[in-house]
Amino acid sequence: MFLCKVKSFSPIGYTFMQLFYAPDLIPPFHTLDPEESRHCIRVLRLAAGDTLHLTDGRGTLYRCEVTDPDPRRCTVEVKERFEEFEKRGYRLAMGVAPTKNIERFEWFLEKATEVGIDAFVPLECARSERRIIKPEREMKVITSAVKQSLKAYHPALEPMTPFREAVTRPFDGVKLIAHCQKSERERRFIGDCIRKGDDVLILIGPEGDFSPEEITFAAENGFQEITLGGSRLRTETAALAAAVMVSFINQ
Amino acid sequence: MFLCKVKSFSPIGYTFMQLFYAPDLIPPFHTLDPEESRHCIRVLRLAAGDTLHLTDGRGTLYRCEVTDPDPRRCTVEVKERFEEFEKRGYRLAMGVAPTKNIERFEWFLEKATEVGIDAFVPLECARSERRIIKPEREMKVITSAVKQSLKAYHPALEPMTPFREAVTRPFDGVKLIAHCQKSERERRFIGDCIRKGDDVLILIGPEGDFSPEEITFAAENGFQEITLGGSRLRTETAALAAAVMVSFINQ
Repeated sequence: MFLCKVKSFSPIGYTFMQLFYAPDLIPPFHTLDPEESRHCIRVLRLAAGDTLHLTDGRGTLYRCEVTDPDPRRCTVEVKERFEEFEKRGYRLAMGVAPTKNIERFEWFLEKATEVGIDAFVPLECARSERRIIKPEREMKVITSAVKQSLKAYHPALEPMTPFREAVTRPFDGVKLIAHCQKSERERRFIGDCIRKGDDVLILIGPEGDFSPEEITFAAENGFQEITLGGSRLRTETAALAAAVMVSFINQ
Repeated sequence: MFLCKVKSFSPIGYTFMQLFYAPDLIPPFHTLDPEESRHCIRVLRLAAGDTLHLTDGRGTLYRCEVTDPDPRRCTVEVKERFEEFEKRGYRLAMGVAPTKNIERFEWFLEKATEVGIDAFVPLECARSERRIIKPEREMKVITSAVKQSLKAYHPALEPMTPFREAVTRPFDGVKLIAHCQKSERERRFIGDCIRKGDDVLILIGPEGDFSPEEITFAAENGFQEITLGGSRLRTETAALAAAVMVSFINQ
């Protein structure tokens, strides 16, 4: 389903708007695919002249009007464009080990997209309980959340990445690794490691946490060890909590 | 299932411990119910002398040892007690309108319990899409999360409460109502309304948000209107984000 209704206040004045994801949109005209068209005309019963919104997922939001309400190939015309729509002042990338129960990981993908994130990096760790994901399925979860929460920026989903590759890959920003273990090095609270506007990369381990070797390797590669507070959190809870804290720090 | 394994570092030194919820525990001995006993002896294969932990859900954690490994009525003996185990320095109560899809609300119950909360108040609002919940089922979700995250304090689950009753009920602390609407009054960011150590009551509305009348009524009854940031969040996402932010403020 490539169309969604949003029942919430929107800064551009609609309390009830539909958002399409159209990465290949080239103004002024765009034709929805058959599934979108059917839903648009048959289900939402939009008619010629009705308004809907499209985003290219790269920051531009388009206000469009239906020009040809064809239930197989509905065509819309761009009437207004909003560049860098609700652009955040920071970039957040999170490397998270997918959970054994994939629904918990998908839940994180949905919620983090709502809260605001730029890139998901599925991590393959020493203690990973899941080493394979279905990228198409996970992308659908993310795209659905993008539309639900009216985002003009579509988070990237990177392929499953070995831990050491994720750690040694260049990242121009604050690099953090969250874990729950005693360490010879100091673990600081995430709030003491990030300032407003910082670009951040945060790593969250699998159910069994990172191995001591992985933590040491990350520390040797410029990652600060952090805690998210006193509570013991599941992998997906810790990951979302970190995303919320980064959003909080940037208010 | 009244027993759970926790694969995470525990402050009392176990990297792998089991926690039971036994609100009726009276030291020094306790007999597990048949289901717990079977799981304890047949599944986890605990034997006489093996260690497990129990909590009364009111702040006390007990380290126990199996004295009688009976698969129908396993008896344990308290060896050590930890009072006010990981007691938080604040109280958090949240009034949240249960979502049409109950799984989303249950997901919030689980995650907020992990993050730390004292009371759940299911709200019945003007625009509520769900006015009935199954208290027994929701309690199981909460209890499971209590054990999973090694909590000695079991959050309370109040019955479905009409909005006006929740708003007029006495609460000795900061009272906040989050919403996504334009208001004649100022909406402040949650981080500007709470200080470390404050007891807090936060209200989160249904999918269609609170009605303007509800928001005005809350404001007239001492609630500050707040925003959780720029993103449009689903009901359950907003509720969890608020709980995470309160936890962050209290670090």
